[in-house]
Amino acid sequence: MIENKKIKLGIVGYGNLGKGVESAISQNKDMELIAVFSRRPASEISSSAPVFNMEKLKDFQSKIDVMILCGGSAKDLPLQTPEIAKLFNTVDSFDRHANIPEYFNAVNKNAKENQHLSLISTGWDPGLFSMMRLLGESVLPKGKTYTFWGKGLSQGHSDAIRKVKGVKFAAQYTIPDENALQEIRQGKQPDFPVEKMHNRICYVVLEKEANAAKVEKEIISMPDYFEPYHTEVHFISEEEFKENHQNMPHGGKVIRAGKSKEKENQLFEFSLNLESNPAFTSSVLVAFARAVFKLSKTGKSGAISVFDIPLGFLSPKSSAELRKELL
Amino acid sequence: MIENKKIKLGIVGYGNLGKGVESAISQNKDMELIAVFSRRPASEISSSAPVFNMEKLKDFQSKIDVMILCGGSAKDLPLQTPEIAKLFNTVDSFDRHANIPEYFNAVNKNAKENQHLSLISTGWDPGLFSMMRLLGESVLPKGKTYTFWGKGLSQGHSDAIRKVKGVKFAAQYTIPDENALQEIRQGKQPDFPVEKMHNRICYVVLEKEANAAKVEKEIISMPDYFEPYHTEVHFISEEEFKENHQNMPHGGKVIRAGKSKEKENQLFEFSLNLESNPAFTSSVLVAFARAVFKLSKTGKSGAISVFDIPLGFLSPKSSAELRKELL
Repeated sequence: MIENKKIKLGIVGYGNLGKGVESAISQNKDMELIAVFSRRPASEISSSAPVFNMEKLKDFQSKIDVMILCGGSAKDLPLQTPEIAKLFNTVDSFDRHANIPEYFNAVNKNAKENQHLSLISTGWDPGLFSMMRLLGESVLPKGKTYTFWGKGLSQGHSDAIRKVKGVKFAAQYTIPDENALQEIRQGKQPDFPVEKMHNRICYVVLEKEANAAKVEKEIISMPDYFEPYHTEVHFISEEEFKENHQNMPHGGKVIRAGKSKEKENQLFEFSLNLESNPAFTSSVLVAFARAVFKLSKTGKSGAISVFDIPLGFLSPKSSAELRKELL
Repeated sequence: MIENKKIKLGIVGYGNLGKGVESAISQNKDMELIAVFSRRPASEISSSAPVFNMEKLKDFQSKIDVMILCGGSAKDLPLQTPEIAKLFNTVDSFDRHANIPEYFNAVNKNAKENQHLSLISTGWDPGLFSMMRLLGESVLPKGKTYTFWGKGLSQGHSDAIRKVKGVKFAAQYTIPDENALQEIRQGKQPDFPVEKMHNRICYVVLEKEANAAKVEKEIISMPDYFEPYHTEVHFISEEEFKENHQNMPHGGKVIRAGKSKEKENQLFEFSLNLESNPAFTSSVLVAFARAVFKLSKTGKSGAISVFDIPLGFLSPKSSAELRKELL
């Protein structure tokens, strides 16, 4: 069912993700951005929507259908989401896999008590990749699932390199290992530790007096981040760095290698190749905000995940249109 | 929610698809096959489950949770499904895209009146590919969606070749065009007619007295089937045909090439590479039979499509397990 009036959205947090959500909303005709909320002063925020301090959130309860939470998973969301779920339907991209059960329970309690609906942990991983893992193992119960990340810029690894003495700028790309991919696609169902599935390529700009060999050794031997991965370090000029390594590409693959009972190999593969990681995560958040709006209209409340949403709710089209055009 | 007792399934129609469904059910511990129904005499059916004539269907109303309909889309399903939806929850793989709205309405009416739930048109296309088309355009509203089929054996095209005078055996493979794929993956969003996206490779065994040049010309110029496609005809021996062209591989790709507002290319690609097309379609039918069972327990009735199913219902795992293991 399409509502004739637009879905009213709000954004909490205005970093890369919040900005991306504003852009993504403008690509969807059935939605409008009502307001942006931030801890920073409004004068520092360059949104085209009105900007308010977080304290004003509760004044918007009747004016916003779904609040899109764009804070960080480490410090912001664990505190913000349970509180905001008291006031609004919400969508977020909480991505600390190990903490999801605890986070879900905290959000679920407050959302349920206040009859709001909160979709946690969407984006591409968790999010679309989670859906593919579920779909792959459900349709091919005998098999193995593999998740690859990259080619993509890893913010965490780039930060780790920048902490090495003598490093001025750094970008680290995670890249799926081609041999691992090939073995999996041949249906061999190998057991791989994650470090055999990925390689790490680093582009580093040195400080003037730095010792390249020492920097390289320190990077390659950094435990967990780089050891035991296959790591390559390339030293480049500041000009080259600024020209080629300022973007945030990412992507990855979910592969289910299954066998039907008569032993035929059945390969299921989903891949993303993104020129902008935050812009894509934002697009996913916005599509799921639509689903939260539609699902909340059916009376559902509490916390949910991407597994609880009929896919049709992600689209602005009616069920009859979807069957006619896309089935 | 996991039911402690097994989901009880029946199969109507025991061709390649019905046999595949029986195999797929045996890969899922939460299900059991209660009976197979066929128009043929039970003595001709080699199922390990009890076999009954179609007339006995109504005796099984209290014994079967979901009936999996494995008849053909041309003649069987349009007649069978609306009738069987009066008696059972159903799942089918009706694949005549243009007739889906009419088919949906006929099934919906009877299912609803009898409080049964009928999932129509699942498998891989329609089915998983439909879900990917929806997901792709929902998360990347500005862009184009491309569906490729192959590499795979096309039964319809192989049959068409076999009708050419002088042809003893034939297998036709549909193959995505590599140049088309490359242009799309580069983010160019080209407009392609379907015949520029696919090529057709034919393996033909001639009758003794046949004229190869004449057969080749007749195949290549066959309207719609081969004209205007790029078609290659290879003449092979009967031995080679029997050795290499008796399987039913298939597959394909759904690609969404989108752009975020700041013009970054965002590529979303799903692909299947299947050694057995009917075995995979069967696996999908069985996973969706589980979803129909679970969704029917929530009180839903009528006809539905893959767009109406929360993905979690496809899995035997509980919501909490799914969040913990797959999110």
